[in-house]
Amino acid sequence: MKQSLHQDGSIIIHQAIQEVLPDEAVRRALQDFRSSGRLTVISVGKAAWQMAKAAYDCLRDRIGQGIVITKYGHAMGPIPGFDCYEAGHPVPDEKSFRATAKALAMTEHLTEADTVLFLLSGGGSALFEQPLVSGEELQSITSQLLASGADIVEMNGIRKRLSAVKGGRFAQWCAPARVFSIILSDILGDPLDMIASGPTVPDKSTCAQAVQTAEKYHLCLSEKARQLLSQETPKELEGTEQKIMGSVRQLCQAAAEACRSLGYQPIVLTDRLCCQAREAGSFLGSIARSHADTQIPMAFLAGGETVVKLTGTGRGGRNQELALAAAEGIQGLENVLIFSFGSDGTDGPTDAAGGMVDGNTQKRLCDMGISIHAVLANNDAYSALEKVDGLIVTGPTGTNVNDVAVVLIRPKT
Amino acid sequence: MKQSLHQDGSIIIHQAIQEVLPDEAVRRALQDFRSSGRLTVISVGKAAWQMAKAAYDCLRDRIGQGIVITKYGHAMGPIPGFDCYEAGHPVPDEKSFRATAKALAMTEHLTEADTVLFLLSGGGSALFEQPLVSGEELQSITSQLLASGADIVEMNGIRKRLSAVKGGRFAQWCAPARVFSIILSDILGDPLDMIASGPTVPDKSTCAQAVQTAEKYHLCLSEKARQLLSQETPKELEGTEQKIMGSVRQLCQAAAEACRSLGYQPIVLTDRLCCQAREAGSFLGSIARSHADTQIPMAFLAGGETVVKLTGTGRGGRNQELALAAAEGIQGLENVLIFSFGSDGTDGPTDAAGGMVDGNTQKRLCDMGISIHAVLANNDAYSALEKVDGLIVTGPTGTNVNDVAVVLIRPKT
Repeated sequence: MKQSLHQDGSIIIHQAIQEVLPDEAVRRALQDFRSSGRLTVISVGKAAWQMAKAAYDCLRDRIGQGIVITKYGHAMGPIPGFDCYEAGHPVPDEKSFRATAKALAMTEHLTEADTVLFLLSGGGSALFEQPLVSGEELQSITSQLLASGADIVEMNGIRKRLSAVKGGRFAQWCAPARVFSIILSDILGDPLDMIASGPTVPDKSTCAQAVQTAEKYHLCLSEKARQLLSQETPKELEGTEQKIMGSVRQLCQAAAEACRSLGYQPIVLTDRLCCQAREAGSFLGSIARSHADTQIPMAFLAGGETVVKLTGTGRGGRNQELALAAAEGIQGLENVLIFSFGSDGTDGPTDAAGGMVDGNTQKRLCDMGISIHAVLANNDAYSALEKVDGLIVTGPTGTNVNDVAVVLIRPKT
Repeated sequence: MKQSLHQDGSIIIHQAIQEVLPDEAVRRALQDFRSSGRLTVISVGKAAWQMAKAAYDCLRDRIGQGIVITKYGHAMGPIPGFDCYEAGHPVPDEKSFRATAKALAMTEHLTEADTVLFLLSGGGSALFEQPLVSGEELQSITSQLLASGADIVEMNGIRKRLSAVKGGRFAQWCAPARVFSIILSDILGDPLDMIASGPTVPDKSTCAQAVQTAEKYHLCLSEKARQLLSQETPKELEGTEQKIMGSVRQLCQAAAEACRSLGYQPIVLTDRLCCQAREAGSFLGSIARSHADTQIPMAFLAGGETVVKLTGTGRGGRNQELALAAAEGIQGLENVLIFSFGSDGTDGPTDAAGGMVDGNTQKRLCDMGISIHAVLANNDAYSALEKVDGLIVTGPTGTNVNDVAVVLIRPKT
């Protein structure tokens, strides 16, 4: 190990992100892809353009027709054979509905010899929508749900039933054609029917639950909407296949693989982290300190999406808070590095992807009169990390599969 | 594995505590103990009686003289050759000073042929004290420090200099006799000079720090006390030897060994855990869920002392909060058990040692209309765990080496 711990950290961050970029994910998912008949590509979500472009690069002339539906400002030019649309997110708008209608027209009257390649990324819920109620009422219900405090499961249970494409209904529409989906997951645990409300996967939610949610939050609904809540979504879908790509699990595995290639023995603790960012940092700092006398280079990894409790007015993000909190636990250890970053390159409302700290960070801050405790109380991790070169800056990466935190420990020299 | 996960949990708890009991710790530490000349045993702290009794059982007639100084109500009967004293804790009183004076008299005029066996457990700071200022002033300064918000390092830096026995001065007093100390640690990381302010170990604190602390907290000090703050403590002590026993590290190792003997592959994550109890529980729950598909039985262990933020009026303790919070993360997993317990058998102001949860705990509570979220907000883990047989009850164990949390995962059947 000739490089510094910090160099290792940079390499691990770079390699992990590369592996979960939408184009790389699509490329890998299509490695053994066999299509028959006419091939239609429907690409939906914030990474729709990149995914469609990657599919085009892989499949070229095999594609009969294609469509991209992405967020405003996210289409990056024409792709041969594809129609590109930009539309509203997070609230669907008329453009979302019109683009989705085009996609439905493309996939009407397919035969069982045909294939639909469905490329889905985050944001698909708003971008891919054909409401069964008026656009105005759908927008009203969406706003009501967002304001009600309903959780994502409750929201989707309602939205699926007001939609011609959600909750497996798009795959039902494409039948008898075969539907192959490549899904970029940004939800912990990859619940297939939750990602963009699962247009191509069997739905687990029930009408009874949807009706209960409507009552619980006193939703204002038209008579038609009420009736729709009682129409069941498909529970089985023949001829469909899904590949989850670029999930936080893959992010963890890619980071672990990068650690291994640099000589560290990696241990992935979890890809479901969801506790408070600073407490996760403290926990990881404790792990580092307890293993500081290791005889072999070790790496502990924890992926997921931690939470930040806002009590101050500073700048920061969950990865920066995690890293800064971890700095306290590893003070004085010269053989430890801890970093945490968001795969999308944007941690909180900052231009950093996350934070990186070592056994000297706390002291350097202390020498400047900066207390980590006070910084965290003000949610101002960005300013503190900036002063000790502790920010990870990648720029927007074009993917979003949550975060990973890494503890690197080398044998003491 | 014929036993249930819960049976395994009970066995692990029992075995781990057995290994860190004061008598067992003394017995192991004395396995290769060689004494010369006259042997004096000074046993100080909340576990002083048990430690002295174990030393007597091992050494019998080899002991020339001995003394026990413990907390009121903690002496359990006469030990041949020992004088037993009970005294004030956490604030030292006249009895502390008188008993300590006896110990100093016993160890005066020793030769380099002689040996002092010093047995130290938690609470020793108050129980073993010979103040260099008046008892009243020492009590006043102690109260000022406790009220000031000074941390334990700052407090001890002051107290060592106002004492004839702390900060290595007791070993200095015993010189040229050899001093062998067996120390039951209840402080994370086992900082030898911090446990009971280290009567037999070289002192790391400096006069400059002590003076600074006095200024920082505006301590009201006599002229004599001021002068004492400038008298340095010993930085080197020849002929002294220390064995740390029964620390949280040993608790973790004992628990890990118990896991191994039951067929689990144990991974000790840390013995320095110090984050918020419920967040540690969430983290451990995430680890369990990510490893729920393991092919071999696994155990993850984390020792230390978590903290609880009191926001409610319920009953509970840090181990119970940790366990209850973990229950959320493992809901539905039938092959996972998570438990956390304090080695002293007393978790918070309750009669339980900790809590134990499985993949069914959250649902059972939910069926009773109990939300884990609401219970934690009210710090009422005891009441909730009681309802689902989730309390660990051991009774007071007579040791205190912090806590350990254990995640057990079996392959799915």
